[in-house]
Amino acid sequence: MPRTSEPGRTVGSRLLEVLFAFQPGNSALSLADLVRTTGMPHATVRRLAVELADFGALDRRPDGRFTVGLRLWQLGTLAPLTESLRTLAQPFLEDLYTALHQHVQLAVLEGQEAVIIERLSASEAPELVSQVGGRLPLHCTGVGKVLLSHGGTELIESVLSGELREYSSRSIVAPEVLRKEIAGCRRTGTATVRGELTPGTDSVATRIVNGEGRVVAALSVVVRTDSVKHPAVLPSVIASGLGISRLLGWSPGVKVRHS
Amino acid sequence: MPRTSEPGRTVGSRLLEVLFAFQPGNSALSLADLVRTTGMPHATVRRLAVELADFGALDRRPDGRFTVGLRLWQLGTLAPLTESLRTLAQPFLEDLYTALHQHVQLAVLEGQEAVIIERLSASEAPELVSQVGGRLPLHCTGVGKVLLSHGGTELIESVLSGELREYSSRSIVAPEVLRKEIAGCRRTGTATVRGELTPGTDSVATRIVNGEGRVVAALSVVVRTDSVKHPAVLPSVIASGLGISRLLGWSPGVKVRHS
Repeated sequence: MPRTSEPGRTVGSRLLEVLFAFQPGNSALSLADLVRTTGMPHATVRRLAVELADFGALDRRPDGRFTVGLRLWQLGTLAPLTESLRTLAQPFLEDLYTALHQHVQLAVLEGQEAVIIERLSASEAPELVSQVGGRLPLHCTGVGKVLLSHGGTELIESVLSGELREYSSRSIVAPEVLRKEIAGCRRTGTATVRGELTPGTDSVATRIVNGEGRVVAALSVVVRTDSVKHPAVLPSVIASGLGISRLLGWSPGVKVRHS
Repeated sequence: MPRTSEPGRTVGSRLLEVLFAFQPGNSALSLADLVRTTGMPHATVRRLAVELADFGALDRRPDGRFTVGLRLWQLGTLAPLTESLRTLAQPFLEDLYTALHQHVQLAVLEGQEAVIIERLSASEAPELVSQVGGRLPLHCTGVGKVLLSHGGTELIESVLSGELREYSSRSIVAPEVLRKEIAGCRRTGTATVRGELTPGTDSVATRIVNGEGRVVAALSVVVRTDSVKHPAVLPSVIASGLGISRLLGWSPGVKVRHS
């Protein structure tokens, strides 16, 4: 993680701070933006940004602002978790999409958030706040609840004792209610969320388990409230999740771990 | 692009050389691998790799080898071309996939290669040599021929006068034949390739044009030879390509540029 702006930081870490200044919703940055975000002198930021652009890690737009470059995107596709999991899961996502014609997405745990690593979107389905590569809170999304429930005691306690943001009037933020949900999710492997992140948008999620019984991802279908019956969606989501899990080496004899 | 191993290179460029040492098919590297690839001293490579891992740009596996990290993948998803183009194109790829049940892919030009930025894969379709983020040669693939034909005189002359690798016995490598194909592709906006990259695998491709008439990507359907009739596939590929182009601001009045 980026350090604070102490003068002793290395050239390498300064370069990485410039690079990781680019964020979802903040993906085209001027030199002035980069100076503001990193707290480094203009001349330093300029030299580092030019160096990053020389390598194709950043691109420079005609208006002078920098964006993440195609070469960096290519490099990112080599990340092993997303690469193998996405490749294995893709036919199942396709089939689920064909069967339901709703958003289908796959997410993994990173820190205290869920990161969406793949999504197939239906044009008639509700608009979503985040995109592939984006983050979702653990306590009020379907994939988040599944990942949280299987992320171990330390993660659960840290999330439950931290700030539980109320994204909508339906967000469940009472720790004792969440604790009960987590216990249920560990038992069933699934989570159903009604309008907790965005009013009018529900999500039905299940876990993806590998050959060692570890929950490595969560799969969900996101639907407009009342557009489909959750009990009708759930079995297909579970079946697809189990199908992906089998490809990862899981079988019905493998005990699912909760940490 | 990475420089050669001169001693005068900066710390920043050394860090980026370590990062860009990761390649498709070479995505888990030990310190020894990194020393060999970069030509830098072991202690330098070690320090830089640890720095990259601290930021989450690299991950360290239990066996000590490094891989590209999830945080870098997330950063890569911010690359504007892939982000907006993939988002716009996705429903069209879905629909084409649903209609044909064949591989559907989207590629852009980078340097003298095509980079696959999105693909939907059919399980019954032929196995492909490359994946999303991977590169394809321009002279003997469907998307490659489309991008080459619209890439301008300088690119065309450079590719035709360079090494034209014979990937299969069906690869077209005679410059004068390729020149004729390029002229045809500029006229029709499409390219059909039969077994030129991989024997038994054909591809039907079309151009994606933006509001300024610039060809910004190519869309293709990849099929097993003789599994489907190309003339039956072509209209749906063209229609999908035009649909994506319209979303990018193109309309039938916009003249397509060839450079």
